[in-house]
Amino acid sequence: MSDERHGYYFEDLSVGMTDLYAKTVTDADITLFAGVSGDTNPVHLDDEFAKASRFGQRIAHGMLSASYISTVLGTRLPGPGCIYLGQQLKFMNPVKVGDTVRARVTVEELLPEKKRARLKTQCSVGNTLVVDGEALVYVPPRG
Amino acid sequence: MSDERHGYYFEDLSVGMTDLYAKTVTDADITLFAGVSGDTNPVHLDDEFAKASRFGQRIAHGMLSASYISTVLGTRLPGPGCIYLGQQLKFMNPVKVGDTVRARVTVEELLPEKKRARLKTQCSVGNTLVVDGEALVYVPPRG
Repeated sequence: MSDERHGYYFEDLSVGMTDLYAKTVTDADITLFAGVSGDTNPVHLDDEFAKASRFGQRIAHGMLSASYISTVLGTRLPGPGCIYLGQQLKFMNPVKVGDTVRARVTVEELLPEKKRARLKTQCSVGNTLVVDGEALVYVPPRG
Repeated sequence: MSDERHGYYFEDLSVGMTDLYAKTVTDADITLFAGVSGDTNPVHLDDEFAKASRFGQRIAHGMLSASYISTVLGTRLPGPGCIYLGQQLKFMNPVKVGDTVRARVTVEELLPEKKRARLKTQCSVGNTLVVDGEALVYVPPRG
């Protein structure tokens, strides 16, 4: 499948390649994510509940930040054509309304036999790591 | 924090407890998820690209199914008050438009010292497992 819409092919990847997606999380994002996921946990939607929680204010869904990792993988590195096989996520710190989340993906290991890549996937707000983890993807070869 | 909006407290949990969330994935879900995440991978949005892919048709974002796991954790089991610490995801099979995804969460292990619970998290369409994995959450005690 050679196609202008296609991302990197397996042969194009090398360890250390990196790309990112950044998004300022607004109330609209949290509302939309609650709607599309069905996750109406009051810590995301209810100021009064959230104020009494350990976070002291409403926070974004962890999976919203995780979805930005999918965005990098699916649109930038490796980009369209790759197949998402797995993702490990550690939710390290909360994301608040107005925070700008930077999701960075870095190629850590290439597995030529199965045409797989293991990528470090980290989301941060300023210098604070909010999501740590890694992804496994299949990346089609040029051939 | 004793509150009608609160979910299970740590003392209320036992191994084997289970709950689920089910959602039929429509085109609207994929469009909304693409918008909120920024993941505009053409395999989700572009019939022509998707037809030429190994899937033969557009598929839903893997993270959309994963978000239904967050929905169970955040609204049902353990429910509001729990803190999402980690999630492992294996994307086993694609989800197509019209598929009904059932996200099931089952308590596998309770870790009383740290008030943590490890839960099996699986999404299926009919008898096909589409996402396998497990979650780690902190669940506040009653005290």
